[in-house]
Amino acid sequence: MRFKQNPLITPSDVKASRPDYEVVCVFNPAVTIYRDEIILLLRVAERPIQTNGYISVGVLDVNSSRGDYENIHISREAESLNDKDCRVINYKGQSYTTTISHLRIARSKDGVNFKIEDKPFISASGVHDRYGVEDARITQIDNDYYITFASISSEGVSTALAKTSDWKSYEYLGIIFAPMNKDVVIFPRKINGKYIAVHRPDAGEFARPSMWLASSPDLSHWGESSLLMKTRDNMWDSHRIGAGSVPVETEKGWLSIYHGCNEFSEYRLGLLLQAKNDPSKIIFRSSEPLMSAEEEYEQNGFFNHVVFTDGLAYFPEQDRIFLYYGAADLCVCGAEFSFSQLLSKTDGGYKNPDRNFSDRLSSKTSKISNI
Amino acid sequence: MRFKQNPLITPSDVKASRPDYEVVCVFNPAVTIYRDEIILLLRVAERPIQTNGYISVGVLDVNSSRGDYENIHISREAESLNDKDCRVINYKGQSYTTTISHLRIARSKDGVNFKIEDKPFISASGVHDRYGVEDARITQIDNDYYITFASISSEGVSTALAKTSDWKSYEYLGIIFAPMNKDVVIFPRKINGKYIAVHRPDAGEFARPSMWLASSPDLSHWGESSLLMKTRDNMWDSHRIGAGSVPVETEKGWLSIYHGCNEFSEYRLGLLLQAKNDPSKIIFRSSEPLMSAEEEYEQNGFFNHVVFTDGLAYFPEQDRIFLYYGAADLCVCGAEFSFSQLLSKTDGGYKNPDRNFSDRLSSKTSKISNI
Repeated sequence: MRFKQNPLITPSDVKASRPDYEVVCVFNPAVTIYRDEIILLLRVAERPIQTNGYISVGVLDVNSSRGDYENIHISREAESLNDKDCRVINYKGQSYTTTISHLRIARSKDGVNFKIEDKPFISASGVHDRYGVEDARITQIDNDYYITFASISSEGVSTALAKTSDWKSYEYLGIIFAPMNKDVVIFPRKINGKYIAVHRPDAGEFARPSMWLASSPDLSHWGESSLLMKTRDNMWDSHRIGAGSVPVETEKGWLSIYHGCNEFSEYRLGLLLQAKNDPSKIIFRSSEPLMSAEEEYEQNGFFNHVVFTDGLAYFPEQDRIFLYYGAADLCVCGAEFSFSQLLSKTDGGYKNPDRNFSDRLSSKTSKISNI
Repeated sequence: MRFKQNPLITPSDVKASRPDYEVVCVFNPAVTIYRDEIILLLRVAERPIQTNGYISVGVLDVNSSRGDYENIHISREAESLNDKDCRVINYKGQSYTTTISHLRIARSKDGVNFKIEDKPFISASGVHDRYGVEDARITQIDNDYYITFASISSEGVSTALAKTSDWKSYEYLGIIFAPMNKDVVIFPRKINGKYIAVHRPDAGEFARPSMWLASSPDLSHWGESSLLMKTRDNMWDSHRIGAGSVPVETEKGWLSIYHGCNEFSEYRLGLLLQAKNDPSKIIFRSSEPLMSAEEEYEQNGFFNHVVFTDGLAYFPEQDRIFLYYGAADLCVCGAEFSFSQLLSKTDGGYKNPDRNFSDRLSSKTSKISNI
């Protein structure tokens, strides 16, 4: 059930990180519980205050030691400008994001009213995230909080790792998945002696983005990558999929919420249940979405018809989940679920078509091999 | 200086791996020295024996426990067929490689005359390399030989790792770099406590392929990825670059040979010298190629105008290098160099434009920011 206070956080609630910038969107928060507070790590998307007739974008000035941004002003009449996508423009063969994002902390005692810090927690800091940092996930392991986030630059989209124990400062641990790779979620404990992550390499024209697994001895170095699950034709997750929340361990397996979109770029959320001792085994995957863009604030915003989650807060004693999500790439919303009811949706299991890897190709082969 | 016996190995020298298949190309060998022999790990590209009017391609039957291939026959008249690239075709929205490659051992005492094994050493074995395995590199560490190779499937191109100590059997260590990533070369010892590799993520439309570094505690798990060097406009390596041979340690730094191609897909070879204690520092990079496709067998073959190396054999006592390379994606050739002469080409150093990351963007910015 959606919070009746939705949207919980909108751009006007967030102070821009510099005087000549405006906050365009605040969305897709990572979530954790620290002491007696819910912490959201918000994605704050900013741009230079716009001037008539121009599109102005900001990028990190990598020659500045103070983290300055440089502004690029492109005439809307420029012939070589392609601005059909509100998120990415192309000018003279070079792509730019229309906004530059950073990660900002917001804290709440009740999960609904948030105090948003005035300054960024993690911002662009070098050549690999010159266009910003986006869409974090937080995994608590003992007293440390591991933060994965997308690093955007002209070299592509990679995923970096940072670590904090006090939510005041953090340690940068480098890029853990090279371009193109995002939507990286780390499981909260070792399984069979190794940490496990879901990642989402993008093979470009070669294949539609898929969710993969990887393993690590130390969280900083990853290997043994393998395909976990693919998009499904003619379903709500036919075009793109990616991990959302950090999996919660249950007796039935690891329960998480992932996102999918169809060919119309409508992003929805679904349930995923992976086997406890072998997350490569999918026990359940939603045939129908758990949540779709239905409310006005989900249907109309910066990028329309989107619900997208990067995390949830689980309160076992109350059998409660607070799910936080970005609505229409514009604002932060929340929804409340009974955890046991959510888990019961996975009853009855599920025949997973993705485990039969001969699917697409075999059906094609049988048709054309009768020569 | 090219071997006068070139080409050393051609498709007719290699026995097909199954009776209904033909060897189309044998090229891009990895190289190592084992006991008193030079070992090449050849890329052998095969296809079903072709039938008039059809393009037939082979892929691994992932439901077969014996490693069977299944054949796909596509009418050359099919409307949805795109066969403009001799290496990859597209049919009904799905890409296929026109050949399926495996890795085959060849052995030589003199470096020129090779005995080629009858059977593959490493072949397609699962969903991640259903379209074959390609372009290996071999790094010797103590008595183990680590083999990186590209795994091709409909999910993209990833890089896997295998290990052998006897060149009779190998252990598969999984995918170390998720799609799209190939041309992975591991340094032969730890540097500052960690193994180092060069890899080549492909960010698709986002950026031209670049060479990156990564580090590992154990060779199987990799992290701390960072951009090493990019393509250079209006030069021989303007369009694509990737690592070639395993770096050789010298007093001046790590010397290796990498490949680059221009916008006409002409592949050439160049020298790269990286600082001994910090391979992210480039000391020298060839302004002019070390080798270009000049001989008939380099200019005309399966994919024309290509010299491409995956390895060399270094004999310190003789101050000799035998460089092996694929010519025109069709056959295996070799060339001999004085190692000291090769190294002396890096004298005088080199101002590396790649270390100034403000290059492309800044020059663009200064032009358009005068609004």
